[in-house]
Amino acid sequence: MANSTNRQILLVEKPTGKLSTDHFKMAEAAIPEPKDGEVLLRVRYISLDAANRAWMHGATYRSAVEANTVMAGGGIAEVVSSKAPGFAAGDIVFGDTGWQEYAAVPAKHLSKMPRIEPMTHLLSVYGIAGLTAYFGLLHVGQPKAGETVVVSAAAGSVGSIVGQIAKIKGCHVVGIAGGKAKCDWLKSDLGFDATVDYKDGAAFKALRAAAPKGIDVYFDNVGGDILEACIAQMNLRGRIACCGAISQYDGVPSATGPRGVPGLIVVKRLIMQGFIVMDYMDQRDQALKDLQSWVAAGKLKVQEDVIAGLENTPQALIGLLAGENRGKRMIKL
Amino acid sequence: MANSTNRQILLVEKPTGKLSTDHFKMAEAAIPEPKDGEVLLRVRYISLDAANRAWMHGATYRSAVEANTVMAGGGIAEVVSSKAPGFAAGDIVFGDTGWQEYAAVPAKHLSKMPRIEPMTHLLSVYGIAGLTAYFGLLHVGQPKAGETVVVSAAAGSVGSIVGQIAKIKGCHVVGIAGGKAKCDWLKSDLGFDATVDYKDGAAFKALRAAAPKGIDVYFDNVGGDILEACIAQMNLRGRIACCGAISQYDGVPSATGPRGVPGLIVVKRLIMQGFIVMDYMDQRDQALKDLQSWVAAGKLKVQEDVIAGLENTPQALIGLLAGENRGKRMIKL
Repeated sequence: MANSTNRQILLVEKPTGKLSTDHFKMAEAAIPEPKDGEVLLRVRYISLDAANRAWMHGATYRSAVEANTVMAGGGIAEVVSSKAPGFAAGDIVFGDTGWQEYAAVPAKHLSKMPRIEPMTHLLSVYGIAGLTAYFGLLHVGQPKAGETVVVSAAAGSVGSIVGQIAKIKGCHVVGIAGGKAKCDWLKSDLGFDATVDYKDGAAFKALRAAAPKGIDVYFDNVGGDILEACIAQMNLRGRIACCGAISQYDGVPSATGPRGVPGLIVVKRLIMQGFIVMDYMDQRDQALKDLQSWVAAGKLKVQEDVIAGLENTPQALIGLLAGENRGKRMIKL
Repeated sequence: MANSTNRQILLVEKPTGKLSTDHFKMAEAAIPEPKDGEVLLRVRYISLDAANRAWMHGATYRSAVEANTVMAGGGIAEVVSSKAPGFAAGDIVFGDTGWQEYAAVPAKHLSKMPRIEPMTHLLSVYGIAGLTAYFGLLHVGQPKAGETVVVSAAAGSVGSIVGQIAKIKGCHVVGIAGGKAKCDWLKSDLGFDATVDYKDGAAFKALRAAAPKGIDVYFDNVGGDILEACIAQMNLRGRIACCGAISQYDGVPSATGPRGVPGLIVVKRLIMQGFIVMDYMDQRDQALKDLQSWVAAGKLKVQEDVIAGLENTPQALIGLLAGENRGKRMIKL
């Protein structure tokens, strides 16, 4: 440790409308001393997730983030020193490190990670993103070969993996993404069968063309109008895996929900099910085994969007909420 | 057969707004001759259901009803003569007889019913209403003893049975109904633990008071604002059985859905599942056995609202959509 200061990014104010860099500021603190049961970490990569923004609205599956504290966020870190059994200097862990260079975190909130190269894969395909895609698609969506699977935010960290797993399972795969470049990439590089560019206007019609037999499984990352369009095109006994609602996070939450709820849910006997990946952690080993075998076989391509520098974290999150990234976005410290 | 005419009620125009008696007219036709494979029926009781109104909007789980035809509707009827194997004069059947005194119906669309007294129970507790309550609550909602079950349209044909089955299963049962008289009846006669009078204004707060531990299972018959209020008060891993949306049927379908979809679905890991009773007919025998044993033991009270006279059918449906009935409404011919 050459320096003795801990650079941090604080959330100075909770946004009521759109998130901007003014809601954050850089600060410096002393490197913390771990207490008994804690581990001192040096953060290597900070994960950027749409959920970071949702946490600012209030308690979700975790408590809300508060103003004038270090912004919360998951990260991959190296253990510097440990006052907890089971952790030693040099170990690689995943946990809520927050947006800072060093963190002292209770050991019970950390997951020890295997040494995998590149280490970034621990945040993408073998991290929350990959596991969310795996469990949400296979356990909630339960696609069968030959069925049509639609995924929104398809070029994002989760969506890009959902679509590829659905292809591995023999489905007709449609990705919804913003812009021609992303759509072309989904088809040419990731093997999606068809795409819908939601920025192009006529998403409903484009979806009909891309999924001519209707939708059996919709993996929803966005909520809002796209969810509404998909509900209208679901087949009988279709399944909607509700993973997130990125269209709703950055701004004032919507005063209404999608049309067709509950009318079409009844008529088509749909299942809409929310999930979060933590609920499936007892089955993580099997999931990682499958994901590793698909990556090794070249069936699952890993796309990462790594940005250097702690100071760029706020802008990187804002860009992610605007759909800038392709694959898993993270900050390298 | 003393007379030779068949009195019928035609739907003369599909409503665009609220349904009124002007949308119907009485007519007379000859009693039909059954063709090969058909059965001639004399209708005894016509079932009135909120779904009758939904059919006017377009195809649902059945084709839409069309203007200038006999209004569709389920009924209990007696076989007059049969040109189909397996059916004989005097048999009692259930089928889509339509709103008329006589109907010739293909045998494959009829279910032979046991001789039960009173025969009206074949439309209420042992008919679609009772089976819908049974399968929707137990198979979709899956309540556990000690959980809180909320049901809307609780004084209606399905809701009144849902609440009583939930009590049999050891749940804390809350009924949502319109008006103090219905609410009092649900508590004093049917054993509901608490009620919410949605006509009283502050339904959200009243629901909070009636279900202080939150909602584990919501059996939704109404959609709209009540569904929205329930979603907001669901517990983690709660289940919403989507049975119908009576608040949406009589008028122009709503341009929006309930707030909280999909945000709260994700955060609370809810399951919303639509169902229709026909999907469970292979398990009907077990359901009827259970329902009969509960009725015999006095644990399940059967409430029926029988109105005499074919000519009163339109007004009876309009009244049902306005929440006039208590228990299963039907027309006696």
